[in-house]
Amino acid sequence: MTDTENNSRTPNALDRMFRPRSIALVGATERSIWSVAAYDNLVRFGFTGRIIPVNPKGGTIHGLQAATSIAAVGEPIDVALLMVPEASLLDTIGDLQAAGVAGAVVLSAGFAETGAAGAQRQETLAAAARQAGVRMLGPNCLGFANFVDAAPVWTNPLRRPMPNPTLALISQSGSVAMQMEQFAYQQRIALTHMISTGNEADINTADAIEYIAQHSDARAIALFVETIRQPARFAAAVTAAGKAGKAVVVLKVGASEASAKAAQAHTGSLVGNDRVFSALCEKLGMIRVFSIEEAVITADLIGRIGRVNRPGLALIAMSGGMCEIATDQAEKEAISLPALAEETLVSLRNVLPDYATPANPLDLTGGAMLKPELIAQSIEAISKDPGIGLIGYVFDVPGKEDARGFAARFMKEIGAGVAASALPTVLLSNAFMPVNGFSRALADDNGIAYSGGGLRHVLTAMGHLLRWSGALADRTERAAVARVDARPVREREVLDHLARYGVPVVPGPVVTSAEAAVEAARGMGGAVALKIASPDIQHKTEIGGVALGLSGDAEVAAAYQAMLARVKAARPDARIDGVIVAPMRSQGTELFVGTMRDPHWGPAIAVGLGGVFVEVLKDTSLRLLPITEKDALRMLDELRGSSLLDGFRGAPAVDRLAAARAIVAIGNAALALGPDLLCLEVNPLLATQGRIEALDGLTVWENDVGHA
Amino acid sequence: MTDTENNSRTPNALDRMFRPRSIALVGATERSIWSVAAYDNLVRFGFTGRIIPVNPKGGTIHGLQAATSIAAVGEPIDVALLMVPEASLLDTIGDLQAAGVAGAVVLSAGFAETGAAGAQRQETLAAAARQAGVRMLGPNCLGFANFVDAAPVWTNPLRRPMPNPTLALISQSGSVAMQMEQFAYQQRIALTHMISTGNEADINTADAIEYIAQHSDARAIALFVETIRQPARFAAAVTAAGKAGKAVVVLKVGASEASAKAAQAHTGSLVGNDRVFSALCEKLGMIRVFSIEEAVITADLIGRIGRVNRPGLALIAMSGGMCEIATDQAEKEAISLPALAEETLVSLRNVLPDYATPANPLDLTGGAMLKPELIAQSIEAISKDPGIGLIGYVFDVPGKEDARGFAARFMKEIGAGVAASALPTVLLSNAFMPVNGFSRALADDNGIAYSGGGLRHVLTAMGHLLRWSGALADRTERAAVARVDARPVREREVLDHLARYGVPVVPGPVVTSAEAAVEAARGMGGAVALKIASPDIQHKTEIGGVALGLSGDAEVAAAYQAMLARVKAARPDARIDGVIVAPMRSQGTELFVGTMRDPHWGPAIAVGLGGVFVEVLKDTSLRLLPITEKDALRMLDELRGSSLLDGFRGAPAVDRLAAARAIVAIGNAALALGPDLLCLEVNPLLATQGRIEALDGLTVWENDVGHA
Repeated sequence: MTDTENNSRTPNALDRMFRPRSIALVGATERSIWSVAAYDNLVRFGFTGRIIPVNPKGGTIHGLQAATSIAAVGEPIDVALLMVPEASLLDTIGDLQAAGVAGAVVLSAGFAETGAAGAQRQETLAAAARQAGVRMLGPNCLGFANFVDAAPVWTNPLRRPMPNPTLALISQSGSVAMQMEQFAYQQRIALTHMISTGNEADINTADAIEYIAQHSDARAIALFVETIRQPARFAAAVTAAGKAGKAVVVLKVGASEASAKAAQAHTGSLVGNDRVFSALCEKLGMIRVFSIEEAVITADLIGRIGRVNRPGLALIAMSGGMCEIATDQAEKEAISLPALAEETLVSLRNVLPDYATPANPLDLTGGAMLKPELIAQSIEAISKDPGIGLIGYVFDVPGKEDARGFAARFMKEIGAGVAASALPTVLLSNAFMPVNGFSRALADDNGIAYSGGGLRHVLTAMGHLLRWSGALADRTERAAVARVDARPVREREVLDHLARYGVPVVPGPVVTSAEAAVEAARGMGGAVALKIASPDIQHKTEIGGVALGLSGDAEVAAAYQAMLARVKAARPDARIDGVIVAPMRSQGTELFVGTMRDPHWGPAIAVGLGGVFVEVLKDTSLRLLPITEKDALRMLDELRGSSLLDGFRGAPAVDRLAAARAIVAIGNAALALGPDLLCLEVNPLLATQGRIEALDGLTVWENDVGHA
Repeated sequence: MTDTENNSRTPNALDRMFRPRSIALVGATERSIWSVAAYDNLVRFGFTGRIIPVNPKGGTIHGLQAATSIAAVGEPIDVALLMVPEASLLDTIGDLQAAGVAGAVVLSAGFAETGAAGAQRQETLAAAARQAGVRMLGPNCLGFANFVDAAPVWTNPLRRPMPNPTLALISQSGSVAMQMEQFAYQQRIALTHMISTGNEADINTADAIEYIAQHSDARAIALFVETIRQPARFAAAVTAAGKAGKAVVVLKVGASEASAKAAQAHTGSLVGNDRVFSALCEKLGMIRVFSIEEAVITADLIGRIGRVNRPGLALIAMSGGMCEIATDQAEKEAISLPALAEETLVSLRNVLPDYATPANPLDLTGGAMLKPELIAQSIEAISKDPGIGLIGYVFDVPGKEDARGFAARFMKEIGAGVAASALPTVLLSNAFMPVNGFSRALADDNGIAYSGGGLRHVLTAMGHLLRWSGALADRTERAAVARVDARPVREREVLDHLARYGVPVVPGPVVTSAEAAVEAARGMGGAVALKIASPDIQHKTEIGGVALGLSGDAEVAAAYQAMLARVKAARPDARIDGVIVAPMRSQGTELFVGTMRDPHWGPAIAVGLGGVFVEVLKDTSLRLLPITEKDALRMLDELRGSSLLDGFRGAPAVDRLAAARAIVAIGNAALALGPDLLCLEVNPLLATQGRIEALDGLTVWENDVGHA
């Protein structure tokens, strides 16, 4: 054994562990249901590598010669499943190095999940594993199962792997992993891998995603996540999975606690932590779901179909009632069911019976019972429609043969339609129903991607698929922004900083004489406002430091003099930079743009309409920074009050592109200020016809929240 | 046969039809799959009445002596299933009277659903049935099945009835009925009746609901509805079902078309037809659902549980991960998971292992595996909590025995918990799973109400159950309002009419001299507005008929004179009633209150916040009239901008009760104006601290929309 072999914390250690050729069952005994289940799983999967029971008493266990210690095995072991009492866990881990073990699976609970003392024990455990050069899965996990290579290291009974797996499961909760696996099996959705990461003392969700991204043929990954331990690595792993063509679907719990916990300043308090996670999903192209059903059905659909090139969905059913239900449901899922093109209608009229009406959704009526070839013909005709990107055919695949062979005939026609279809085509059941071996084989044999999720769930999954595909198409590299050193604090400094990043800001020179104020006001051509400029004065209005609606040289000059006098009297100590002269703005649509910093995910930007929209309705759209113009445009579209931008009560429409550019620039200006910036807020960003302008700017800095 | 017996359109005709003791299969032949299926269903159900095949050729059909005509049977027949060609349908119906037939089932399609010619044929058919004194189900239906009395009249194969039925299905679409029945069977949810009403040429959804309400032990009715043909009878039937203790769950399609079709004036255009149907559901205590799964799972849950006395839900699971998913899901469903009371926590600590934390949801942890009696103890402890009204226990009932009898042991404990529970207690699966005969029997035998819908669907159903129970508790008789004859058109008339119904309206006497204007203004103590009062002038401002912000006797008098001069010059033809003097109001929160008239459901009332809230965000709450104060308060709560009423930016809070009273009064004022009123709009209803006041009132009348 060389040093290199022995140092199992090498890049290939995870691959040795997750695709093992030798598995040690440490603490194996026929009296333990865990040991028996783990061994039985290996046999049931047909594991072809070496299985080594380890027990100090030696002898024959599970019909195999047991080693008396892990070190006594005498050859490198890819993975050791530790089923030993907690008291001997550390010693056992210490032994692993000498035995050349790549990875250890620790099932025991009672560590970090129980509190501080447990967390301490877990740290000791992790240190021991590091010391031993061994990767560790757990503690408090159920292990993993590699279905592709017939290698389960899992202590609850598992079923034999199914053919054509496309889905990998990664879960921080062992019981949720089991529920997902059970549900996937019930729907005959084959898994490539299932990894229960437990407390993640060493191997975490990011490692597992990265491993699947690199080493698995899975086309989709479903995650159950409670906590993300290494945000940057997690994001990188999800990105890598996407680049490897694998969709990532995430069921993240804790959504309901978010608002309560979000006690952040300014923009952060408007938004809450959970929406930041949704913004992360948006940024990474990760699909966020909220139930086990939605996770598995969505991941399965995307695994079977992959990316779709156009957003329009066409549905075909054999019942008008189901078409009607589908139409309503599609609207709820924001799925477009486009009207069919004229040439498609002509093609359909040529094949449909007289009493059927070509439309989307298409009700084939009882006609398909009499003339099953209608099915293939309709699918093919619709697949040529230029407005459609995905076809769904609604039919329940039976769980056994029917006496008259109806179903087999229909499936043959659907298969012919899928084969002739120029578009991705999915078969889905009417309502939710399990899929058994017979129905899955019938679908597979006819080349049909089938989901038993029913209209309700599959339309939700299709909505995810269509949005995910659209986002992939739109994905643009976002530019990195260089850091600056200056820390703008004063209003004028903030506006100048924004202007340097391309944000149009209201003119507002700081003048130091009445003459200069008059000259500045003349150049603005209209009424002006004067505001005292002082780094020491926060609340200008209260000491007479603001004068509004001034017109004409005399009024401006007088106001300048009067203001300086008032302020000096009220605050003789304050440093006075001068007086800001700004044009009065009163017309237009007020936007709110503010950035926040999430402790996990970094800077984010929120956009809303001003006033009640943001403050009462919390109607904001959120993205992680940096963003592109397209992102900003979509943020404006997402606002509930979005139509206000199109002109309300005769007001001119806002130039959305100009607004989007300003929003992107505000984001870049915030990024340039580095991680100490908690918040950069522009409120309002005033949009009038042809002009977008930041009227006010504010920064809040780390350790400085009370100040703002 | 007496005349009375012969007149089968008597009150008991439907009961004879739907609980038949004699069934004629007209057009029976062993060569028809419909005839065979209908007969087989009767045999499979164990129908104990008389089955009479009818075929002109006579002979033995389905092993029975066939009658050569319906008239030849020689004794009254409760129901005739007509499987004859359309050409002989009218003749056959004509024969039914002489045969003493109570009801006929007509399966044939090709009637009103195909267009005008079909509608004409359908009318002829209906007339023939009326003429023959026979009730008719269909055409274009699949028949009905009475599972309780083992009487199916249904031409697709059905399975044998299951024990303990609680659910009745009524569907206008035969295929949706079959999907619902299939789904219910898959979940082993037993049906009492299934009625496919088809085109409803005679018997319609209202008849079917009424029948089930009166004659069935069903505890819930699930409806699939495309069109409601007799709105008043439908509403009465749903109300009758509610009084008979039966919940009504409705899947109504067409939601997505509603906005496009709603081309109504004023308030109607803000709201759309589909929201009126939701308002009807609210009024009738009917539960609106959007998928087959949601319909069946909700109706089943309510059928098993009935009404709940308190809204709080407690959940118990055997996994922390599932508890977390449940918490997020409950928030989405607006279900309260209250913190447990201190005494409940104490009780739970006494039974739980140390490492389990008493909380809601309660994670029993693996402790329940070691000590199953935990299950019953926990359910019982939680059932005594004063904040909880419903308990859900999350556990998958297995579909077969497990070797070690774990599941049976758990089910025994859950059953003991249910028996000891002071609250309704439901068992639900983790994720969606089918329920087979074994699992249903295991649940039933242990006295457990079980749903295989999984957290995702059962929490949705629980949300419905809890809201429905709450609405039942709140139900108040709404007062009828007497009609008045006068038709207020002028602004002052409308405000006076509102005032008569108790709506506080802004003072605004019509004066006819400058002196009177000055006197009126003095009494208002502040700035006033003058507005020309003329039935002939719609657009006052344009001809100088409005003057705002007038202070002092001189200004008021001058404005009066100037206005009269301007208006007389501009519109010498117009009748001038005088000038309205009203106090200026500028502070406060603007509410919008408008009524509309739905062609099906009559007058409805919408409430919103003024300005952008109504016009951009369409943020309104809608109810059918009349409403109670409680309804109006809930409408205010439902607004997305509701928190604006609590005071925004330092504005005083709106007196919600006073606002609610004004809203109720506006509704009553509208009802008093009868069916020609399309719209009564108060915009704004201005709410300031301690004062609610209608500032403007408008009516729109039938055939007068263009005028407004």
